[in-house]
Amino acid sequence: MTTIKRIVLESRPLGEPSPENFRLEDTELREAAEGDVTVRVLYLSLDPYMRGRMSDAKSYAAPVAIGGTMEGETVCEVVRSRHTGFGPGDIVRGRTGWCTGAVISGDVLRKVETHGAPITTAVGVLGMPGFTAWSGLKFIGKPKEGETVAVAAASGPVGSMVGQLAKLVGARAVGIAGGPDKCAFVKDELGFDAVVNHRSADFANNLEVVSPKGIDVYFENVGGYVWDAVLPRLNQFARVPVCGLVAQYNGAAPSETDHLPTTMSAILRRSLLIRGFIQTEYAGEHFDTFLAEIGPRVAAGEIKYREDIVDGLENAPEAFIGMLKGRNFGKLIVKVDANA
Amino acid sequence: MTTIKRIVLESRPLGEPSPENFRLEDTELREAAEGDVTVRVLYLSLDPYMRGRMSDAKSYAAPVAIGGTMEGETVCEVVRSRHTGFGPGDIVRGRTGWCTGAVISGDVLRKVETHGAPITTAVGVLGMPGFTAWSGLKFIGKPKEGETVAVAAASGPVGSMVGQLAKLVGARAVGIAGGPDKCAFVKDELGFDAVVNHRSADFANNLEVVSPKGIDVYFENVGGYVWDAVLPRLNQFARVPVCGLVAQYNGAAPSETDHLPTTMSAILRRSLLIRGFIQTEYAGEHFDTFLAEIGPRVAAGEIKYREDIVDGLENAPEAFIGMLKGRNFGKLIVKVDANA
Repeated sequence: MTTIKRIVLESRPLGEPSPENFRLEDTELREAAEGDVTVRVLYLSLDPYMRGRMSDAKSYAAPVAIGGTMEGETVCEVVRSRHTGFGPGDIVRGRTGWCTGAVISGDVLRKVETHGAPITTAVGVLGMPGFTAWSGLKFIGKPKEGETVAVAAASGPVGSMVGQLAKLVGARAVGIAGGPDKCAFVKDELGFDAVVNHRSADFANNLEVVSPKGIDVYFENVGGYVWDAVLPRLNQFARVPVCGLVAQYNGAAPSETDHLPTTMSAILRRSLLIRGFIQTEYAGEHFDTFLAEIGPRVAAGEIKYREDIVDGLENAPEAFIGMLKGRNFGKLIVKVDANA
Repeated sequence: MTTIKRIVLESRPLGEPSPENFRLEDTELREAAEGDVTVRVLYLSLDPYMRGRMSDAKSYAAPVAIGGTMEGETVCEVVRSRHTGFGPGDIVRGRTGWCTGAVISGDVLRKVETHGAPITTAVGVLGMPGFTAWSGLKFIGKPKEGETVAVAAASGPVGSMVGQLAKLVGARAVGIAGGPDKCAFVKDELGFDAVVNHRSADFANNLEVVSPKGIDVYFENVGGYVWDAVLPRLNQFARVPVCGLVAQYNGAAPSETDHLPTTMSAILRRSLLIRGFIQTEYAGEHFDTFLAEIGPRVAAGEIKYREDIVDGLENAPEAFIGMLKGRNFGKLIVKVDANA
């Protein structure tokens, strides 16, 4: 394996990304130096934050350069190793980007440990998305027994975990999802107490019906008009961990009715706590705790998850574009190696 | 003393209050029952939150009824007491409202203790406004040595305390105030490190100049276009205690450029913490600690404050209307008793 395929950023999107913003190309692997590991990519994780990396707007992370490999986390198999921590056949995860193989320093790789769950969970329910849900609830949302916890994109990897963790502490879990299939999954499979379809014309009213005592924790990962419907339902001392704003990533105009003053007034009047966070703030200190606590539950089927697996690196751009429109159903993963 | 004067809410304002929304009238005191205390009002505190009580919009507190006495905290002298905790001549504070005297249960009165500072401080720097600053910084803002703390209405009772407390922990204090007189007071008298005039056309640019390392804590008590200028300056992990939004109380349209998405994106990208609070959340448990810590410093002149004292209850409405426009300079207090 010296030639690999990769997808590079061809141009920066204005609004929604299109296939023309990506380019699939062949490239040569660099020679492995001492400490490097050569890996074959098995699975690529596609996540909404990648939209941010395509823009050069100021953000918490540097953008992908034009012509550079699209960033992303992958599950890989070690082919050759010049690092003492890894040997051929090891299954690892790392940020190789959208490619079929890479030479990468072993220092930034991590062996996959899933307590017996499938290795794809290392980039889903037992990886960054699952940890985002876990840490956002543990350090910011802090749901208590009897409280109501709401989350949007409830069938997705973050949302599905948020609701199930809320149930574990005795809170009421209210999901928001797009369309009847996702809603049925959230209620029937994941066991949320209630779910509402945000594509329904009665969305705001339905949300009120299923949260009769208001909302104590809203896990914000969507923004836009969903936030408008949630804001009036937030109780005094509600907590709002903000880990994403998918509805706003393409720069679409969100609600025209809800401006900042409304939000700030609600924050003041009801002593709301709103806190942005990136999971890396907590991962260094707490990821192992998360994995030890949640891994066995996932492996035992007590915590459920859904994956949406797409075949072939060449299909990653289309899958990614669809994800930003909510077309995926479950954690979106690209199966890069047909034999994985 | 059986007949007193009081100011009642004549009608609810739309936008800015006007003198017609208030009515001065004579009324008879009710008979004192067991446990009641009869007081003569010496000083009435005027505070921005009162604008909220004039509206019947949903809020954290019930509105004043039409024809009811305007709410407010006062410093009073006990005339007669049927409560074992108080005797004639005691100086107390209580929520008697805008009036010259009252019969009130002794259970809701508190003896004024100012560690030797003037008794007016009991409704200012050593009362609700001072405690608002102290508790908002202690429990939400948590400024650290070397950080930058900014506050608007910096010459007011909350803002002046915020900056001085920030200095005590070794933080850099940046004040925002309206007009050259207030700015000079904030810098020269209160000892803030820097101050900017929000009425200047160069306001946003000036704020950038005086906060070269960004802002770590913004104590929000104003809202509107001041917030627009502050938001881009907030550093990663900044904390924003929100205790008031004076600029928005009259329903005036704030900035037209800053909508919710901008704020939510900033919250997400920079892991901001924004938290509304009402000082009553902390007062029960922590007011005595505050008074013991700050009272002696005020009495010794180490913590400075400024009062804006208006003579006569009949002038309270005009003073209140002016305060909402930023016309007062320092803690606004009405001297109700000419002999106080």
